[in-house]
Amino acid sequence: MIKVGVFGASGRVGRLLIEDLKTTDAMSLSTVFVRNSLDFSIDPSVLVTSDMQAFLHAADIIIDFSLPDACEILLEEAMKTPKPLVIGTTGLNTHQLNLLKEASERMPVLYATNMSLGVALLNKLVYQASAALEGFDIEIVEMHHRHKKDAPSGTALTLSQSAAAARGLDLDKVRVSGRDGNIGERSKDEIAVMALRGGDIVGRHTVGFYNDGEFIELNHTATSRNTFSKGALRAGKWLADKEAGLYSISDCLEL
Amino acid sequence: MIKVGVFGASGRVGRLLIEDLKTTDAMSLSTVFVRNSLDFSIDPSVLVTSDMQAFLHAADIIIDFSLPDACEILLEEAMKTPKPLVIGTTGLNTHQLNLLKEASERMPVLYATNMSLGVALLNKLVYQASAALEGFDIEIVEMHHRHKKDAPSGTALTLSQSAAAARGLDLDKVRVSGRDGNIGERSKDEIAVMALRGGDIVGRHTVGFYNDGEFIELNHTATSRNTFSKGALRAGKWLADKEAGLYSISDCLEL
Amino acid sequence: MIKVGVFGASGRVGRLLIEDLKTTDAMSLSTVFVRNSLDFSIDPSVLVTSDMQAFLHAADIIIDFSLPDACEILLEEAMKTPKPLVIGTTGLNTHQLNLLKEASERMPVLYATNMSLGVALLNKLVYQASAALEGFDIEIVEMHHRHKKDAPSGTALTLSQSAAAARGLDLDKVRVSGRDGNIGERSKDEIAVMALRGGDIVGRHTVGFYNDGEFIELNHTATSRNTFSKGALRAGKWLADKEAGLYSISDCLEL
Amino acid sequence: MIKVGVFGASGRVGRLLIEDLKTTDAMSLSTVFVRNSLDFSIDPSVLVTSDMQAFLHAADIIIDFSLPDACEILLEEAMKTPKPLVIGTTGLNTHQLNLLKEASERMPVLYATNMSLGVALLNKLVYQASAALEGFDIEIVEMHHRHKKDAPSGTALTLSQSAAAARGLDLDKVRVSGRDGNIGERSKDEIAVMALRGGDIVGRHTVGFYNDGEFIELNHTATSRNTFSKGALRAGKWLADKEAGLYSISDCLEL
Repeated sequence: MIKVGVFGASGRVGRLLIEDLKTTDAMSLSTVFVRNSLDFSIDPSVLVTSDMQAFLHAADIIIDFSLPDACEILLEEAMKTPKPLVIGTTGLNTHQLNLLKEASERMPVLYATNMSLGVALLNKLVYQASAALEGFDIEIVEMHHRHKKDAPSGTALTLSQSAAAARGLDLDKVRVSGRDGNIGERSKDEIAVMALRGGDIVGRHTVGFYNDGEFIELNHTATSRNTFSKGALRAGKWLADKEAGLYSISDCLEL
Repeated sequence: MIKVGVFGASGRVGRLLIEDLKTTDAMSLSTVFVRNSLDFSIDPSVLVTSDMQAFLHAADIIIDFSLPDACEILLEEAMKTPKPLVIGTTGLNTHQLNLLKEASERMPVLYATNMSLGVALLNKLVYQASAALEGFDIEIVEMHHRHKKDAPSGTALTLSQSAAAARGLDLDKVRVSGRDGNIGERSKDEIAVMALRGGDIVGRHTVGFYNDGEFIELNHTATSRNTFSKGALRAGKWLADKEAGLYSISDCLEL
Repeated sequence: MIKVGVFGASGRVGRLLIEDLKTTDAMSLSTVFVRNSLDFSIDPSVLVTSDMQAFLHAADIIIDFSLPDACEILLEEAMKTPKPLVIGTTGLNTHQLNLLKEASERMPVLYATNMSLGVALLNKLVYQASAALEGFDIEIVEMHHRHKKDAPSGTALTLSQSAAAARGLDLDKVRVSGRDGNIGERSKDEIAVMALRGGDIVGRHTVGFYNDGEFIELNHTATSRNTFSKGALRAGKWLADKEAGLYSISDCLEL
Repeated sequence: MIKVGVFGASGRVGRLLIEDLKTTDAMSLSTVFVRNSLDFSIDPSVLVTSDMQAFLHAADIIIDFSLPDACEILLEEAMKTPKPLVIGTTGLNTHQLNLLKEASERMPVLYATNMSLGVALLNKLVYQASAALEGFDIEIVEMHHRHKKDAPSGTALTLSQSAAAARGLDLDKVRVSGRDGNIGERSKDEIAVMALRGGDIVGRHTVGFYNDGEFIELNHTATSRNTFSKGALRAGKWLADKEAGLYSISDCLEL
């Protein structure tokens, strides 16, 4: 049984982690770190603490979805009490990223801004398909809910980057984000990345490879927002017995 | 058994019609019109003629996929020997379209530039869905082969027109053909019509309606180019016993 | 502003209704019926009552997602104080269904076991497509989460019933639920209804119509369980000014 | 310029090869083997011969889509004049398969009963996904035209075999081909392989991996029957400079 400490327990993903741990095999919640332990109600078997060292000692691994400044303190404290760290906090600055690298020399640290196993796998598959399917046209479609303000999604850009890299293409030169009018025949290298918006779609990405006679379409669909929490738990289970080092979500896929 | 006369028999669709008639229930090929009957080899039971009146007399219905000038002559001759006419010739000018209307006062005339039953049906369904699903966001994706030079496809425009009309929207004001950058939240009325290009895709259209909690996607896919021929034969069977009048492919769906 | 009374307010859909009413145009929550009003905390502007007649008087329309016995009492009391009733309670017995019909002679009653507008619309479209696309093969695929115990889903059965009815077919004779081995060519009238299970899929239904040269696929996907609540509110808004009578969710689509 | 000899030139794939070679970069048709050279009309620059050794000498590589007995003769003759051989003939018996292995000791031989690059790639991706996505439910759907007599397709079986193998499962024990009635919750290891039939679908395979919060669907669609010919030419180009050995279509993907 891996004892998990949750850092950032009152955040959105933090709460999902606590919930998901109730039904996760071979892992259990041992402790949560909160600033003010009086504000937090949870099963009495769980240690709720605002003492960082007590928090680190009570857990086998730490999962962090907090804010950059809090994450910085966690990294500093973990130098004294090294534990496997899964870091899902986004927006780290250069100093904090350096701290993270430094920590990874003493303990295993997995850092990822998208913890979805599915997206990490899709990214690997897209790279392979793009390399293998020479001459196939690449077209990418992503869809998100009506409130999303930017396009295309960060994940769609990552996927198109992988597709381009596998062919030695510069994405900036080949990316197309719309088509209208007398555009002429499709050029060989262009990669369309089309963004659909509507309803409450959590996230859907399709990378297609089209040739005469056949095509392949690789799709990832997120059905709920707790993919991050599930992904972090899986990553934590994998990380628990690793050596010190900096890992990505792809590493834990072990392809 | 409905006796079919094929006009434009040496064209691409004309040849498909002749082939498809071999396996069509309740219809048979009785005659083909060709300019020079010596050039055309076919089953000896079929009348091959360059005499327009003989051609018209020998058939119960006429299917035409020719060129505008030839179609014009057919329409003029049919005034003398009225027969149900299925006209699939594209690019008719104003004079020819008027002639077509005039002919439809004396005989049943079905005129359509896309004979696919599926697309005609989809168009009806899209109109209904757009009207019924108030508040659902509409997004349309079409895909065609890499050689197609214009975007979006004529069919995608027709579908988006139907979707817009059902809500009293002006398509020109609400159509979006790409999204890139900090575009902000989706506006309520916009209709994206996104064009994908690749491989040898004959034609694929998806009209989606997205809301919180649910979405509907209506898709039509053409798998081969003989949809036109099949559609014309079905239209001809329907038209055979109709009264004089001008019909569209939607009429023969009889929804 | 339509004043809504929620019956079954502490149930799963009841709570969603209360939540969704906060952001619904032209409707507001006026009153909830609960057995013990002390147990229920809500905005003080809302009347929380265990007095049925007070509950009925305070609302313009009633939405009910409760249990059969509670629904029965609601129907009996509404005879004295008729109000438009949206009934989403499932599992009503014959007596209760008769009571519902009786009530519908004095007030407008909309009864539906699936309040999703999308599914109701899909059902209409499937009927039309099945009738119009004579000769197209029909295949239906539904997918639900891994915990669902029966197959195919009730919605898939309803859709296949519509598809069969449009062609005068007896579903029991033509339905196929799996294919394995040397099954021979597909028979003209068979309708496959295939059930996929996996993950946490809320509900996905695709009805396909396949012919030589083209096919149509009509899909509905539920993305969250609050489709019922949204559907009931939409139905209530529509029902508010109707005459006495028994209505279905299809009626309020007004196709 | 690789000079290609086509064996089985009057067969369906043979004719496609001849056609496709006209537009293939860096390859040209140099010779075709036919039993009776008088029956075969082709560009005069191409050697049409019924002399096996002349045929072998004139080509840099040989592509064979013939029948088992003819293929056997080809293999025997190639022992005397070794050339890279792409063998697409199906239904070889044990003796012929042994001969093929023997030949592969003296020349590079690529043997595949499905030459589609896309299907070979999909198979690799499915294996990886199945291994990486532990705990995701696997469901496979294949669709083919209404005339196909067996189910599921050979390709679907190959794909499900890969998915099962990656998890150490015995496909015979976990494969499900239909679901109907009160089946209970999905068991963890089952793999549904559902067969749809309809219209003129050339071949469509989707392998899905479903978990709480996300799913991945990997799809391959054949859009025309000349995928085999294209695949064989690509394989031939790859094989031309290889050492003696027995290769599969996966080898030439070089993932």
